[in-house]
Amino acid sequence: MSYYPASVLNLIKNLSKLPGIGEKTAERLAMHILRTPMKQAQALAQSILELKEKSRLCVRCFALSDAELCAICSNPERDARILCVVEQPAEMIAIEKSGSFQGAYHILQGVLSPMDGIGPENIRIQELLDRVAAEHIREVVLATSTTVEGETTAAYIAERLEAFSINVTRIASGVPIGGDLKYVDQMTLKRAMETRHALRY
Amino acid sequence: MSYYPASVLNLIKNLSKLPGIGEKTAERLAMHILRTPMKQAQALAQSILELKEKSRLCVRCFALSDAELCAICSNPERDARILCVVEQPAEMIAIEKSGSFQGAYHILQGVLSPMDGIGPENIRIQELLDRVAAEHIREVVLATSTTVEGETTAAYIAERLEAFSINVTRIASGVPIGGDLKYVDQMTLKRAMETRHALRY
Repeated sequence: MSYYPASVLNLIKNLSKLPGIGEKTAERLAMHILRTPMKQAQALAQSILELKEKSRLCVRCFALSDAELCAICSNPERDARILCVVEQPAEMIAIEKSGSFQGAYHILQGVLSPMDGIGPENIRIQELLDRVAAEHIREVVLATSTTVEGETTAAYIAERLEAFSINVTRIASGVPIGGDLKYVDQMTLKRAMETRHALRY
Repeated sequence: MSYYPASVLNLIKNLSKLPGIGEKTAERLAMHILRTPMKQAQALAQSILELKEKSRLCVRCFALSDAELCAICSNPERDARILCVVEQPAEMIAIEKSGSFQGAYHILQGVLSPMDGIGPENIRIQELLDRVAAEHIREVVLATSTTVEGETTAAYIAERLEAFSINVTRIASGVPIGGDLKYVDQMTLKRAMETRHALRY
């Protein structure tokens, strides 16, 4: 590694701190940046700094945002009376990409995980309850993951929402579309069977 | 892609311009940088800018360097009378890592490639001839790649160096160490046979 001048070495070191980027890849990226036009390298550096400076969490739903309210919370065409509760921004984006939801979100910024010392007060559950109490919410869709922690979190929130006269729903679990039944795990099959629904034509 | 705020989108766009980094990976990296401490993100941005500002080519051998002379050219323990001619800095670093060479380098910054309009005047061949004329060089090792362009470049330089009474050598081609003979391509085997050498015990 001492074959590179200090400036190259330093960039390799910093790049290899990124997830999935080992020393070899970092070397290749640094060599590419060396050959890249000054303007493009500056744009990359600048966008890293701007991301850290500008991006923050929406004050209402805790989604990633450049402004006080995120694009969804400030969009009058979204149905603000349905809240989809997710763990992290990445899950919100996955649902947005699916185009299956037209309501608003609430990003918990984590899941309940007693093993890691994460209790209800460490994630945005109180803020969700406050929103349900203050806004005219008619449905809360619990879209946490189907992991042990995600299920626990959904169950906990459902219980806390019993005090309100609103619909509380959970996204369906079951056989993935395109999934071959014989390769689907038993837990998923069990859930798919339990939550089977009538077909309406 | 419009699911992200502009600052995130912009970083994803800039990251995905890097080689081997697609949109998915760029997304993942951007999300990581979001969670990363401010100081670490700043260090990454800063090191990109510093690389572009500080790193330049050694005035003597055209290796990557932070100073006028690179670490090898300014190292009195390296034998400056043997020059290893390579195409690009990456090849120099590969040789350095092998620990097999104690002389100095000359980085051509390319190879002859008439198809791409790259002639002798576009790479650092004249500078090599000037060095051989001015410095007390006793051997030039041609270590360009064994591609058509690399071989052509080596042959061209060898011809130009005939005017000087120095040794001109070419790195050996042949079966890679650990290579299984039956999987080695015919060109390599042919070369390995042609350049076979006596075993001395």
